[in-house]
Amino acid sequence: MKWNKKDLFAIELLSKEEIDYILQTASSFKEISLRPVKKVPALRGKTVVNLFFEPSTRTKTSFELAAKRLSADVLNFEAITSSVSKGETIVDTVKNIEAMKVDCFIVRHSISGAAEIISKEVRAAVINAGDGCHEHPTQALLDIFTLKEFFGKIKGLNVVIIGDILHSRVARSNIWGLTKLGANVRLCAPASFIPSEIDKAGISIFYRIEDAIKDVDVVYLLRVQRERQQENFFPSWEEYSSLYEFNAQRFNLIHSKFVVMHPGPMNRGIEIKSEVAEKENSLILRQVTNGIAIRMAVLYLTISQINN
Amino acid sequence: MKWNKKDLFAIELLSKEEIDYILQTASSFKEISLRPVKKVPALRGKTVVNLFFEPSTRTKTSFELAAKRLSADVLNFEAITSSVSKGETIVDTVKNIEAMKVDCFIVRHSISGAAEIISKEVRAAVINAGDGCHEHPTQALLDIFTLKEFFGKIKGLNVVIIGDILHSRVARSNIWGLTKLGANVRLCAPASFIPSEIDKAGISIFYRIEDAIKDVDVVYLLRVQRERQQENFFPSWEEYSSLYEFNAQRFNLIHSKFVVMHPGPMNRGIEIKSEVAEKENSLILRQVTNGIAIRMAVLYLTISQINN
Amino acid sequence: MKWNKKDLFAIELLSKEEIDYILQTASSFKEISLRPVKKVPALRGKTVVNLFFEPSTRTKTSFELAAKRLSADVLNFEAITSSVSKGETIVDTVKNIEAMKVDCFIVRHSISGAAEIISKEVRAAVINAGDGCHEHPTQALLDIFTLKEFFGKIKGLNVVIIGDILHSRVARSNIWGLTKLGANVRLCAPASFIPSEIDKAGISIFYRIEDAIKDVDVVYLLRVQRERQQENFFPSWEEYSSLYEFNAQRFNLIHSKFVVMHPGPMNRGIEIKSEVAEKENSLILRQVTNGIAIRMAVLYLTISQINN
Repeated sequence: MKWNKKDLFAIELLSKEEIDYILQTASSFKEISLRPVKKVPALRGKTVVNLFFEPSTRTKTSFELAAKRLSADVLNFEAITSSVSKGETIVDTVKNIEAMKVDCFIVRHSISGAAEIISKEVRAAVINAGDGCHEHPTQALLDIFTLKEFFGKIKGLNVVIIGDILHSRVARSNIWGLTKLGANVRLCAPASFIPSEIDKAGISIFYRIEDAIKDVDVVYLLRVQRERQQENFFPSWEEYSSLYEFNAQRFNLIHSKFVVMHPGPMNRGIEIKSEVAEKENSLILRQVTNGIAIRMAVLYLTISQINN
Repeated sequence: MKWNKKDLFAIELLSKEEIDYILQTASSFKEISLRPVKKVPALRGKTVVNLFFEPSTRTKTSFELAAKRLSADVLNFEAITSSVSKGETIVDTVKNIEAMKVDCFIVRHSISGAAEIISKEVRAAVINAGDGCHEHPTQALLDIFTLKEFFGKIKGLNVVIIGDILHSRVARSNIWGLTKLGANVRLCAPASFIPSEIDKAGISIFYRIEDAIKDVDVVYLLRVQRERQQENFFPSWEEYSSLYEFNAQRFNLIHSKFVVMHPGPMNRGIEIKSEVAEKENSLILRQVTNGIAIRMAVLYLTISQINN
Repeated sequence: MKWNKKDLFAIELLSKEEIDYILQTASSFKEISLRPVKKVPALRGKTVVNLFFEPSTRTKTSFELAAKRLSADVLNFEAITSSVSKGETIVDTVKNIEAMKVDCFIVRHSISGAAEIISKEVRAAVINAGDGCHEHPTQALLDIFTLKEFFGKIKGLNVVIIGDILHSRVARSNIWGLTKLGANVRLCAPASFIPSEIDKAGISIFYRIEDAIKDVDVVYLLRVQRERQQENFFPSWEEYSSLYEFNAQRFNLIHSKFVVMHPGPMNRGIEIKSEVAEKENSLILRQVTNGIAIRMAVLYLTISQINN
């Protein structure tokens, strides 16, 4: 196939072939970060803008390094303290930055669909780095890349995603990606954390972690977002931990060969116990490493679609 | 002519020939931002410092991209949270940064004349990016560049500047530049917004927008700085808008071929109505694009004066 | 000798030969910052992370410029507003950044030993840029480099360090470095500012500045950290100044040829009077210039130890 999209909004909008193509491209870029000189001139003279309307260090940093390793110039636009706060509309802000002849916007915003809205206004590439509770496509791509690297395939894998599925863009993107590639996805959470719209082929729902992890290949733990506690989806995080935390006892219930994943940052002692975060079957740091390769691939593929 | 200034403080201090020379240089740099590889090695190995004592995203970003497209290294010195707040004097801060062998300071400060004061202490180039209510020379240069690009000349153009002239460094720089190049400048504002010192050849003053815009070539709208409202120069921004906002009705009063300009960020619904900001005779985004070319030219010309 | 350390934690841990080796390396790098094109490809494709858990502009900037002049990519990780504040442990943060395949961490932290703790977790180079009241090794190295450049030697120099020795990592690093290279170090402060553990060969203690500065070669003034005033180590800074400030009167008591140093930022009128900060025997700005060369040397030597 030939890549022909200038934007990346959502895994939901990608075909199986497109996902595979990104994974292959990432595979060829991964090696660059392992060289002594971690830099290729692929995007020299291109300008990539980090446009984060929500605070983020980790994802922003990953995109920044990915862009720099392709020799692009990176602009960290302080969207929160910028003209936006002087009463300018987001569309005006974006059009203004684009008028400076930039090639790509990496967008994080609390509103679902923000990247897509922005994309309508600009000819630059637009990459969704997390929009509300909707999607976080590069996170799912790096997760899938990591699983494929480890297991050699996605098809047929039994993956359990544990945590607040309802508010998780990471979960939504992974559900789309994993099911498109043929994995069996189990969701495990208290009922108030399971979105009502989820009822698809290839997905099963569990309320008890002990049932959910049976014969599983992948335990994917979502980050508990403690800032949402006030919404009272759950009595307390202590109670959450006692019922859903992945700890040594639950770890030992699994008799299959399995791996542990987490999108970070981890809350040790809430959704994951330190004793299992450190085990050799944790892929958590490998996910971070592969994040650079995936973002290099996505930057390269989308920016290559812009006629300059 | 040969350029021989290491600093840019004010349009007032430039001759007509010097302004023309900057415009010509910018013209040759503009094309770089339209290439697929937007980068030339003109300032490779030079260090440019963004020294902003007032918050700014737009102007700082424009200088940063201009410097990077000339291959300079850019240092965003967080002047507000820096040593200055530890009790160090500004002069000590500047001398310290210069001791790191930097080549250029881009200075924004709330005090008129700040760039000039700093320049006395350093051998690096110093560019004023806005000093109090005094001047913002690169803004006027990019505005004039944009007008010349559109009309082919400045001489004889009828330009009306509408808004709070009194507190506007953008207005002051444009008044100097436009009159030096032979434009006819009209100022339009309530009396409390007209500076008392303005009484020069080539300038006329209007209090009613309907009179001011007659047969005009350029409508230049200043940004209303809502943070100044408390100073009570004017009863309310609602009343200001009803009397001075540029809207479709006023737009239709102009029978000449004219353009609309604004230094950004716009307050839609206060000084400019959305319906006219979007019209095809708006040059607002073209101003932003040309800002990069003007700043590349100014960086290149001033830094070239430093003997390294 | 051959350099064989991937980390720099403390001058205490360096041999005289290692200190000399860093000084020699810095000497060869200093010239780069004096060229028109201040850039060499020594660390091209390497990633250096500024990981500052305490606010800093000056030291961070110095490391950033040093890294860029060696062509490294620099990541300013906002440790204060980052995942650390989302409940992630520092070790997890560091391991995550390292998983992005970075080559060097520059660490500033309020806890003594922080850089060493972090180093145990990563294979990247780790450079201490100030840890609590413990050490600030690159500051001492640049001070010693500056003295050697001026006097041609360190051995036998009489150096008086004046100020809050107790809380000063700068003082501790300099005491280690200067005594290792054979200088005679005098400490001068009120008794509450003298650490109890100091009682070593080559160190003498003074409580009156007039006694301490007799026949001295170097007057090294520490920065008074006014944010510590509440701890009541001293009645008031006014009283401190009257007893310990280096002013023209005290300046004139010294009949030897001597120099004045300060790690910056200066509190003029507290520990140093403007009239003496400006004298031609002040090396204060030369320290800043040499800071770049020292940091280039330390980055180069440590990163070269990492097998990539």
